[in-house]
Formats: sequence, C-alpha cells, structure tokens
Amino acid sequence: MTRRTWTLDELVEGVRTADRRALARAISLVEDGDELSYSLVRELYPATGQAAIVGVTGPPGVGKSSLIGALVGHVRGLGRTVGVVSVDPSSPFSRGALLGDRIRLADHFLDPGVYIRSMGTRGHHGGLAEATLQAVLLLDAAGKDVVFVETVGAGQSEVDVAGVADTVLLVLMPGSGDSVQALKAGIMEIPDVIAINKMEHPAAKTMLNEVRSIVALAEPERRPKILLTEALRGENVPELWQALEEHRVGLAEDGRLERRRRSNLAAEVFSLAASRAEAHLRTSVADDPALRHVLAAVEERRLDPLSAVRQILEEVFALDATNDR
Amino acid sequence: MTRRTWTLDELVEGVRTADRRALARAISLVEDGDELSYSLVRELYPATGQAAIVGVTGPPGVGKSSLIGALVGHVRGLGRTVGVVSVDPSSPFSRGALLGDRIRLADHFLDPGVYIRSMGTRGHHGGLAEATLQAVLLLDAAGKDVVFVETVGAGQSEVDVAGVADTVLLVLMPGSGDSVQALKAGIMEIPDVIAINKMEHPAAKTMLNEVRSIVALAEPERRPKILLTEALRGENVPELWQALEEHRVGLAEDGRLERRRRSNLAAEVFSLAASRAEAHLRTSVADDPALRHVLAAVEERRLDPLSAVRQILEEVFALDATNDR
Repeated sequence: MTRRTWTLDELVEGVRTADRRALARAISLVEDGDELSYSLVRELYPATGQAAIVGVTGPPGVGKSSLIGALVGHVRGLGRTVGVVSVDPSSPFSRGALLGDRIRLADHFLDPGVYIRSMGTRGHHGGLAEATLQAVLLLDAAGKDVVFVETVGAGQSEVDVAGVADTVLLVLMPGSGDSVQALKAGIMEIPDVIAINKMEHPAAKTMLNEVRSIVALAEPERRPKILLTEALRGENVPELWQALEEHRVGLAEDGRLERRRRSNLAAEVFSLAASRAEAHLRTSVADDPALRHVLAAVEERRLDPLSAVRQILEEVFALDATNDR
Repeated sequence: MTRRTWTLDELVEGVRTADRRALARAISLVEDGDELSYSLVRELYPATGQAAIVGVTGPPGVGKSSLIGALVGHVRGLGRTVGVVSVDPSSPFSRGALLGDRIRLADHFLDPGVYIRSMGTRGHHGGLAEATLQAVLLLDAAGKDVVFVETVGAGQSEVDVAGVADTVLLVLMPGSGDSVQALKAGIMEIPDVIAINKMEHPAAKTMLNEVRSIVALAEPERRPKILLTEALRGENVPELWQALEEHRVGLAEDGRLERRRRSNLAAEVFSLAASRAEAHLRTSVADDPALRHVLAAVEERRLDPLSAVRQILEEVFALDATNDR
C-alpha cells in the first residue's frame, strides 16, 4: 500500500470538511515543519476564530487527560464537535498508550465528531509551540466547536497555553502541594477555572479550602471558579463544563474576548519570532565563522556575554541594540 | 545626605576588592539596565570564572533559602567567601522579610565574607535573566569562592538556573508531589544533587524512596546524590555541601566542567539575544506602523500567525526565514 500524496487543494478541502485522514496528514505535515503545512494554514486561517479554545494545564499525573475525556463525552452529548491537541509528553492521548481504565478515551477516537491528536512524539522543526498553534488552527478551521489543548504545568513546558486559549483550566489533585505553593507565591498565574480532581481523596476538601483562600486575594472579576471533580466517574463534569462556558460567555459579552485574543495573538507572534531567531542562531553557528568567533571570545573571557548579545543583535539581526533600553 | 555617585573606575576597583557598597551599587545599576553596568561587567569579565556557581532550585516553600543560609554558614566555616543571588520572588532573602526563625539568615548580612542580594523587586529593563547573569558575574569578579543562585521551580521562572550554574541542586520536601511527578514524567530535568528538606516529616522517607526509584532510571554518571536535610537545625548540611563539591570536582577532573560552561554560555547568549529580540518587538510596535500593520492583519484573520512571524524575521531581523527549516 503506497501512502497517499495530498495536494494543497485536497488538504484545504479535506480539513474544511473535517475529513479525518486529511486532518491527520495536515497535522503530520505541521509536525514535520513541511512547507506545505504553512501554505495550508495560510489558506485556512480566514476560516478560524470560531472554536472555543480551552487550555487544560496542570502537573503530570493529576488526571488532565481523563478529565478532558470526560468533558469530550459531555460536550458531544450537547451535540457539539470537539478537537483535542495534547502537548503533554506524559499524556495517554496517543493510540499506543490507551491502556487500562484509560481505554474509554479510545471510544472518542471512533466518534467522527471528535479528533484527538498528541504532539509529543515527533521532531517539530519549527518548535513545539508553533506546531501546537498550527494544529489548533487546523481543528478550528475544520469546524470543531470546542478545541481542548492539554499542556503540562504552568510554565513547565515549552508551550504557554495562555497564548492560544480563550479559557485556561488548571487541574490539580490532592498532593499538588508545589502548584498550590506556586499559586500562593504569585509565581503561577491564576487560571480562569480550577478543577481539583480525585475528589474522593481524603485531602481533597483541605486542598479546596487552601486554593479557595489563595484565589480569594485576587480581584473579584479575576477570581476563578473552583470545582471538585472525579474524572473517571464523570462527577461534576457537567458543572465544570458550565464553568468553562460561563467564563467564555462572560468574556464575549463585554468585548473582553476580542481584546484577549488580540493581545494573545500579538504576544504569540512575537514569542514565535523570538524562538525562530534563537533557532536561527543555534543552526547557523556551525556555518557562521563570525558567530563562532563571538562565542569563542566569550568562552575565553575576552568578551562578556551581554556585549556578545549586543554584537549578535547588531550583526545578525541588524538591530540597533542600544536603542532598546 | 546625598547619594554617592560612582565613576566606572571606582566601581571596577570597588567590586574587585569586594567592597559592599560598590557591589550594592553595581547590582542596582544592573537591575536598572543602566549603561554603566554593561561597561562595568565588560571590564570585570576577564576576572570571572573562578567561583563555583551552585544553582538552587525547587518549588516555593520547600526551604531553599533556609538551606542556602545553612550552607553559607558551613562554607564560611571552611574559610571560603560566598555570594548569594536570589531570583525567587517568594524568598526571604531581602532585609525586610527576615523575620521569625529566618532571623539567623540576617547574621550573614553582617559577615564581610558574604554578600546576599535578592533580585525580586525592581524593574529589570533587560529582563530578569540578564540581571541575574550580570549579578553572578559581579560576585564572581568580587572574588567570592562560591556563588549560590536561588530560583523558583524548574522552568517555572523566567530564569533557567542551569544556564549559569556548574552544579544544580533541586530542593524538595514531603508534599512536593507535583515536582516528583514532573521528574518521573521526564518533564523536569534531572538535577546534579537533590535535597529532601524537612526530614523530620513522617512522609520524608517515602519521598526519598520515590525520588530514588525515579533517578535510578538515569544513566549511572547522571544519577544525582539524594540527601535528607533539615535546614533549620543544620542536619546533613555538611554532607550536602560535600555532595555539591564532589559533583563539581568530578566535572573539573575530566574536562566536563569546561565543556558544560562552554555550552551553557553559548545557550545563555543565544537565549538572551532572543529575549532582547522579543523585547525589541514589544517596545517598537508602538512606533512601527509596519509591525502594527502585520498584527492587524493577523487579528483580522487576513494573515496567519506564522506568515506574520516570517515577515517579521525578514523585515525586522533581516533574516531569510525560509532557510531555517
């Protein structure tokens, strides 16, 4: 069996009609940094902006994937289509890893209204953040009503979910002491909604109170709703979905959704440009004697690091570095 | 009383002789992104590279500052001078916050062989990562034998301590479930030494075994030493210092220290250049109609984000963006 070769037009049409094989091929091209994938997203971009993008973050092991699985089931029950992009390397959202009690997630793989894709395995030529954004845009263009983006930690991963999501859900569980401390210390940004999963755990209520007292210090309109959930039995999943919906509707009503998306997009574009610039430095150092010369001078303590940075900005990026401070 | 104005020569001389007021002024200039601070570090950089740089990372609340305080006491007892740079906003290493049982840390402020500085409070024009690097270089140039750099989390802060440190110490405590999960999932990089602080806690031994079984999967030469400590009573602090020393000596013996420093420096220079490039975009967008035009096209869904990135790389940074993949 030979692998089918897709033309750009076929891919555009295939993604627009949410054809599974077209989506699969499109996201693989995105992961490979294939030139075709850039053309594809360029074509489809005007059709995006319709999906509700929900970022789901939290430390590994708290049950993010199970909770997304339960939310997908609930949202499908409401007649809405769903896409899932997982950029958590420890996520079970890859066909190979769907074992044990997670097998129920596999049901969704057969539902034509659901498309699930894990981004944890390939090379990502343009970086994982780029690939994630492109995959989300493809699912949006495919007409998915809701797109969940699963990422690890808050700032612990390369991908900052806040840059693409309309609503950020933080999932914790009893034992998530480090995350609670990080919220308390103001190091982790306060999300839009918090789920404390594994509500049967004896320490769940204590954690709820602790988290509640921390977010009580935030301004009223920025105070997230906090829910106790049990992903595997689906407990409080409808309530969680309602909280996510309410957040988005609240944003949309008074124009904040547009403003948030605008500032997210600008920040995302600048951040991706900076990543590209850094990747350019890494890949060109081998062929660029001037760049190697600068690094050698730093290693030999003849040129200090920030003078080297300034030289690179001026000579490689053609920026006047002194103007920036 | 008027504030003393320092000339560059006075600052160079003052830092070289570890004058406290000169160091204080120099680091304040670094924090302000003052042009004088760049000249100062440029002058002093050839004198750096002598200090042992120990990065101390871990979630907030595990006792990193107390442990550094205890290590400082131990290292001073060995007759060595010490600098501490704290980039943890929740750290008590600021004069105002030295209360309760932390008062003992204040003793070190009076010891002329110790210089402690918290970086959590000011504007940091060039970014916190730049300011931290510059402060570490100043303490190194001031002849401190050991420089501790305290940062929050692994990847949770803007500053990646691995980029400047010879040795990375991860501090955990019973309850650090999220960090243990992150280590297990391979999301958090395995450090050089691990301290499980608050060893009196009933769950300390369980955590020790859990962490031990995780790092057992690493290659033997990358397997960190793990110690139970009790910072406030100084328990196992000499042993912890010995583990940190052994790590560095082991690296130095077979040339790995030089290689690590070389690749750290290159990565740090590239990362700072990328941050500068991003800051340049953020600050110039207000005055640059072309850049605003690009962002407007993205917002209006006429130009997709990665085409915008490509335009920015080509037009603002004068890079040929198509060559990088």
